[in-house]
Amino acid sequence: MRKIQMLALVCILAISAFSQHNQKGFTLVIHGGAGTILKKNMTPEREKAYLAALDSALQTGYKILEAGGSALEAVQATVMVMENSPLFNAGKGAVFTNEGKNELDAAIMDGFTLKAGSVAGITTIKNPITAARAVMDKSEHVMMSGKGADQFAAQQGCEVVDPSYFYTEDRFRGLQRAKERDANKVDSSNAGLRNPMHRDEKYGTVGAVAVDKQGRLAAATSTGGMTNKKWGRIGDAPIIGSGTYANQQVAISCTGWGEYFIRLVMAKSIADRMEFGKQSLKDAANQLIMIELPRLGGDGGLVAVDKNGNVAMPFCTEGMYRGYIRSNGQKEILIYK
Amino acid sequence: MRKIQMLALVCILAISAFSQHNQKGFTLVIHGGAGTILKKNMTPEREKAYLAALDSALQTGYKILEAGGSALEAVQATVMVMENSPLFNAGKGAVFTNEGKNELDAAIMDGFTLKAGSVAGITTIKNPITAARAVMDKSEHVMMSGKGADQFAAQQGCEVVDPSYFYTEDRFRGLQRAKERDANKVDSSNAGLRNPMHRDEKYGTVGAVAVDKQGRLAAATSTGGMTNKKWGRIGDAPIIGSGTYANQQVAISCTGWGEYFIRLVMAKSIADRMEFGKQSLKDAANQLIMIELPRLGGDGGLVAVDKNGNVAMPFCTEGMYRGYIRSNGQKEILIYK
Repeated sequence: MRKIQMLALVCILAISAFSQHNQKGFTLVIHGGAGTILKKNMTPEREKAYLAALDSALQTGYKILEAGGSALEAVQATVMVMENSPLFNAGKGAVFTNEGKNELDAAIMDGFTLKAGSVAGITTIKNPITAARAVMDKSEHVMMSGKGADQFAAQQGCEVVDPSYFYTEDRFRGLQRAKERDANKVDSSNAGLRNPMHRDEKYGTVGAVAVDKQGRLAAATSTGGMTNKKWGRIGDAPIIGSGTYANQQVAISCTGWGEYFIRLVMAKSIADRMEFGKQSLKDAANQLIMIELPRLGGDGGLVAVDKNGNVAMPFCTEGMYRGYIRSNGQKEILIYK
Repeated sequence: MRKIQMLALVCILAISAFSQHNQKGFTLVIHGGAGTILKKNMTPEREKAYLAALDSALQTGYKILEAGGSALEAVQATVMVMENSPLFNAGKGAVFTNEGKNELDAAIMDGFTLKAGSVAGITTIKNPITAARAVMDKSEHVMMSGKGADQFAAQQGCEVVDPSYFYTEDRFRGLQRAKERDANKVDSSNAGLRNPMHRDEKYGTVGAVAVDKQGRLAAATSTGGMTNKKWGRIGDAPIIGSGTYANQQVAISCTGWGEYFIRLVMAKSIADRMEFGKQSLKDAANQLIMIELPRLGGDGGLVAVDKNGNVAMPFCTEGMYRGYIRSNGQKEILIYK
């Protein structure tokens, strides 16, 4: 009799564990850039437009994850929504280089396999994140740059657009303002960048991280880089380990003053503090964004999710476009501190 | 009386600590690439030429460190010696791209300040490591690419050469062989890369790491990339955290199948295992190169030195051109397992 009771108990436990596994929740977290985003500088219309764009991005990823899709598919589709919006410095809304061009960077990483793809300085692919995905899936490489990356992505069927697709009046005026400021600069130091209002205009990125129903993690980041950028500058977004990283514990996408994120190897630092230092996601992310980053003189933020669905969205700027959604429908979309 | 004795003791301890600090040793470690380097394939003349080139590189860095120069100066000068040799796939001896060009990558990092500079795909700067240094010292950026990077480096006084400077018959024949192999490939998988003999011809890098008399660390890496490379492929060498990294604990320079080094964020992983996992340099480096790297399907090696002068030079290929020299004159130069 006791044996039967034991057997029944084991069965109940097994069924419960199995169904718990199948019912495992998913979480999606996004950002649309960090900077000097102040309520007083925002019109109600513009604020509404941002909130709607972030919500639309979250809903797109939610549907994929809800249907059992992978974190990888979800972060790519989510980033594409933001790339297609003129509001963010990525895809359609990319800022202009010093030469009046739009040069776009993107990266994607699958935490489950540690596979990654990345492009830097592309000019003709409508959705740079699809180019990064093509590099990951269809080449023996991780990172491609310039015309070669454009050609490869086109060959792989990524949607090609005329570079004029990326023209927006708003961003073009941003370039003119940046050039005027640079012309008025008395020296060649980065005084211009050190003015937070100017920096806000210079930077911007979109990104998404997710953990899916099967517990797989992925991260994706896309950016137009820096207004008035010269010399083929590459920021942190397309650098695996700096702006974008995922493994089996955590997925991270960054936004901010890219040079400091590269020097700190930001995303991998957080993952390693968790893996080897046994820190929580919150502690590791806060240490890097609120202490190490400002200590070096940089600023910005990031979004991250760990395998247990814990979310972190720290930033040390005035604001960061950000939000998350969970399988239970819980959702938050935020802009300011 | 006892007070005087105590005071004398404190003085002796202080003087001893001070002189110990001043007499602190320095260490320089270099590599000239890892691959299918087998004694049976090497002529005595060629072996002698490699040993002489590695020795010359070590001596150059040694003189700088002996004279009290910084680790940063030493690794740059050491890498320049190897860049100027046609024997290594960096600078003069760079391999050819699919288009018959030489596109060079390099990175340098100062562990003391966490400052870093990096260039990808440059074609007209004689010593790419000087271009990386210029990015670090004279720009607000960390990474530049393509023509823009060439222009910036030239503007900063780096020595400019005609691209034909990088022509060597040996490397040009290597490109022809690689193209023939690719033409004979039945599919577009990376079967070609998976043949170690072919891979050996495809890859190669030079690098140096050092700890100076003041305990400061630095790392530098330079490469011609991959024979027959297309699509503006960027490998691990210019990626801070992957092929090149230094902090106040350790300096690391990698060589090998770059894509896997990027996916593992190789150099930062080792540094973080030491910092947060309290692993020794040897354990951390071995774990990554002998276990994690082959597990993913990659291969290669690295050189590293920590603040205490511990040296690691692991590789999972048949050979790696490598060597180190210490302030006490102790020196080793090795090629095979």
